[in-house]
Amino acid sequence: MGRSGKGTLPARAGPAVVLVRPQLAENIGMAARAMLNCGLSELRLVAPREGFPDLRATRAASGADEVLEAASVFPDLASAVADLHRVIATSARPREMTQRMVNPRQAARECAAAAAAGQRVGVLFGPERTGLENDDLAFADTLLSIPLNPQFSSLNLAQAVLLVAYEWSQTVFEASDETLVVNSSRPAERAELHNLFEHLERELDASGFLRVPEKRPGMVRNIRAMLQRAHLTEQEVRTFHGIVSELSRKRRGGPERD
Amino acid sequence: MGRSGKGTLPARAGPAVVLVRPQLAENIGMAARAMLNCGLSELRLVAPREGFPDLRATRAASGADEVLEAASVFPDLASAVADLHRVIATSARPREMTQRMVNPRQAARECAAAAAAGQRVGVLFGPERTGLENDDLAFADTLLSIPLNPQFSSLNLAQAVLLVAYEWSQTVFEASDETLVVNSSRPAERAELHNLFEHLERELDASGFLRVPEKRPGMVRNIRAMLQRAHLTEQEVRTFHGIVSELSRKRRGGPERD
Repeated sequence: MGRSGKGTLPARAGPAVVLVRPQLAENIGMAARAMLNCGLSELRLVAPREGFPDLRATRAASGADEVLEAASVFPDLASAVADLHRVIATSARPREMTQRMVNPRQAARECAAAAAAGQRVGVLFGPERTGLENDDLAFADTLLSIPLNPQFSSLNLAQAVLLVAYEWSQTVFEASDETLVVNSSRPAERAELHNLFEHLERELDASGFLRVPEKRPGMVRNIRAMLQRAHLTEQEVRTFHGIVSELSRKRRGGPERD
Repeated sequence: MGRSGKGTLPARAGPAVVLVRPQLAENIGMAARAMLNCGLSELRLVAPREGFPDLRATRAASGADEVLEAASVFPDLASAVADLHRVIATSARPREMTQRMVNPRQAARECAAAAAAGQRVGVLFGPERTGLENDDLAFADTLLSIPLNPQFSSLNLAQAVLLVAYEWSQTVFEASDETLVVNSSRPAERAELHNLFEHLERELDASGFLRVPEKRPGMVRNIRAMLQRAHLTEQEVRTFHGIVSELSRKRRGGPERD
């Protein structure tokens, strides 16, 4: 059923993305791109209005050709979901039916758990203008609602696919850790930091430390990165100013302290 | 600094989105839409190539006008971040500098924690084609990398903004829970379920239960939703077939059991 054999995707099977009566071929392509970004490969299309394949879809996919080439087209939703064990329907509006409702993170957990148990899951996305109809939702065991700004929740089709696929991907791709502990006292503002950088670099220029022109930009960047990693407090910035001034004073032949 | 006063956004201050030398006005608009979807309102533009404001940005914003109208334009990155306490730079590629690197979820946690402490945070996004340069990254205390399919990680600018903004929004908007417990034995396939639905509806039609035509579609949907909520196993589907058959046999005047 349209699984990619090119070996560029993670081993764990992700959910199938089922676009129900998509209106614009371009959105099919953008959805395919978002899927492949997140490691999903199985695209199912139910009665796409502009037909399929379509050059506009291919262009919008920006290179996610393997997803489009492996996509399956179905005449109706019943046949598109027939071999699945779980069907999750995206829905912005609350409906009169009583169904399970989950958010994308919980849906991703359930997709991962189902895949681990060898079950096939599909996530349904409705037409751009109207979303899924009640008759479509009746094919699903679970509804998926993306919690967004209630005053401005209208999401482009490909963006909805991206968010759902992204949450799934986070169960698969290793999430990088944070590395350094953050100081809890009041951090310096950027302007304060940049004053310090400029002070230090001025003195380093004067001392000859930054004398090789072709090396200077990289050295400055690394010094700034190093100091920013320290998450300096406003107090520490002032201390550092004092250190730079003190060191420079001595080099310039100012009076020695006793 | 360009905060919206229209009261449609969550009370907790989100990070500023800083688009560094964006190339296409359309992408500024799409980024603004993604921001407002996720409850972010503060957009800062550094030297946008096509100028700003721009009608193409407004059209692409699909109604997120309040974000564009409140946006600030800066000639360089230094002035755009001068009043911030924390600067997080999105970066796809590993760089030679040693900096903290976090994923979007961790970045969202840090943005929320900083906001709770009254600190201002900005997230930098680079130009579409090239991303942020090393000189841009030197303004940041932390790098943000979105873990994606390593073979296909190129993300549209607005999609990158969406993912980062979405993770932040999930720290603010209430995430809906799952509600019903899932049976752990082998679930029925959809085709098995639909056979059961059709069997039941055939018998309910014959019995007169679904005799009011204008009520039939809603009743059928609700019956299907109710049964799907049960997450029936394959065994339970067969049991249910038996129940339907048994009830129908008696109504049709078949032999009474003793």
